[in-house]
Amino acid sequence: MSLSIAKARTIISSALAAGESADMQPLAVLVLDAGGHPLAFERQDGASFGRFDIANGKARGALSLGVGSRALMARAEVAPSFVAAATAALGGTLIPVPGGVIVADADGHHIGAVGVSGDNSDNDETAAVAGISAAGLTPVPG
Amino acid sequence: MSLSIAKARTIISSALAAGESADMQPLAVLVLDAGGHPLAFERQDGASFGRFDIANGKARGALSLGVGSRALMARAEVAPSFVAAATAALGGTLIPVPGGVIVADADGHHIGAVGVSGDNSDNDETAAVAGISAAGLTPVPG
Amino acid sequence: MSLSIAKARTIISSALAAGESADMQPLAVLVLDAGGHPLAFERQDGASFGRFDIANGKARGALSLGVGSRALMARAEVAPSFVAAATAALGGTLIPVPGGVIVADADGHHIGAVGVSGDNSDNDETAAVAGISAAGLTPVPG
Amino acid sequence: MSLSIAKARTIISSALAAGESADMQPLAVLVLDAGGHPLAFERQDGASFGRFDIANGKARGALSLGVGSRALMARAEVAPSFVAAATAALGGTLIPVPGGVIVADADGHHIGAVGVSGDNSDNDETAAVAGISAAGLTPVPG
Repeated sequence: MSLSIAKARTIISSALAAGESADMQPLAVLVLDAGGHPLAFERQDGASFGRFDIANGKARGALSLGVGSRALMARAEVAPSFVAAATAALGGTLIPVPGGVIVADADGHHIGAVGVSGDNSDNDETAAVAGISAAGLTPVPG
Repeated sequence: MSLSIAKARTIISSALAAGESADMQPLAVLVLDAGGHPLAFERQDGASFGRFDIANGKARGALSLGVGSRALMARAEVAPSFVAAATAALGGTLIPVPGGVIVADADGHHIGAVGVSGDNSDNDETAAVAGISAAGLTPVPG
Repeated sequence: MSLSIAKARTIISSALAAGESADMQPLAVLVLDAGGHPLAFERQDGASFGRFDIANGKARGALSLGVGSRALMARAEVAPSFVAAATAALGGTLIPVPGGVIVADADGHHIGAVGVSGDNSDNDETAAVAGISAAGLTPVPG
Repeated sequence: MSLSIAKARTIISSALAAGESADMQPLAVLVLDAGGHPLAFERQDGASFGRFDIANGKARGALSLGVGSRALMARAEVAPSFVAAATAALGGTLIPVPGGVIVADADGHHIGAVGVSGDNSDNDETAAVAGISAAGLTPVPG
């Protein structure tokens, strides 16, 4: 199973709705396919222009190591030089804070990832998880 | 006036609808703000993963030089070494074929750009123009 | 409203005048548009050649995350690995010390940023704030 | 003798005045020091955001090979693969079209360069030459 654009749209609209209902700051939500390539993206009015790159760093970094970006944060605390080196090796696209959530199907296969940026990291993750769940898929926040 | 996410959504859905009604190949549609930063993006099922970068090269290249990417193609025919060098100077984000269409407001100000990739360049441009027009804005294809 | 070259000139001359009246070291002052692209720049005699890049890192980093670079410094103190990773994701253009000040219009919209480098960070920020205020705009130092 | 910020200001204001009196398109004018580093820059309202990079490619490319960018264009016609390879080796900052003019002092020493972008290449060069001449220095267009 691969992540369809229809599912990606549901993820984005549901993540944004979750942010709005919790009075979060304006968000950017990026959905990547299993290969880490952009499938869909929206940046709300008022979110700054670097949010795409931050969301991409969370989601692509998560997918490239196979764990949600919250686990990358834990890794950075115990092994900071590994995470720093991995970030460089991956061309800068690894941001080890919550908000990069892997999308798994019913069999547990990783079929994509969602990166959210705009509010604090915990809230970003909450919005990503809400979006993935609304699409009937399994969030793996790490 | 700046380009809102609401307008960007209309541009994307209308560009994709134009592609479908003309039986085009699956498309990727990217909307950039005036500074060349992603505002919204969708890639239809079946479009290959490099389409984001191609759409970005068309749209960002157009905005960075202030003309639609069809004009960049004309420039590349008479001055290929200028266009090749400009591409390098701009970090690789300039693709001189049709499909990168500047979005102008009623005063003629450039408030963003749309890049489409997936079908041939003429069709890509047709879809971009349709999307921008549907949002009540002025397409500048070059 | 967008930042005009006339306003940018006022910002630079006023920032430099503020530096001179406070006997600061020679300064470099960069004004960016809302998209983070150079609008105007001056480097005083005696300021070293890397000052452009430092000023750009402060100002572009501030704009890309939507807060003045003083707030980025505070963020780097509590979340150093986030700031390091964000810097890489943004292509290196984020310098988390004071002196990157967002320019807001009367409605609070971010229409550009000013980066100053040459003296210590607090003085750099003082000069940037003086320049923006002299142009009748609102400085957001973070 | 090195290029002062006072001379750089004269170059820019005179280059822009030359463009306006000849009804040129909005211009961007960049002045580099002898090491190829930015000394001063202005981009007129209406000039697109990529103009800094284009002006830099003309001026820095000229300085890095010691000839005006018009000579680089001639070189690109007879030895295109050398110029392409040099462009890559120089990190993309070489644009082989007119408008990158070396600044020489009375002894013929290269003390900087001016890059202009915004109109056609011949006009860009005309503006650069006018600016350098107005500052009492010698333009070397190539």
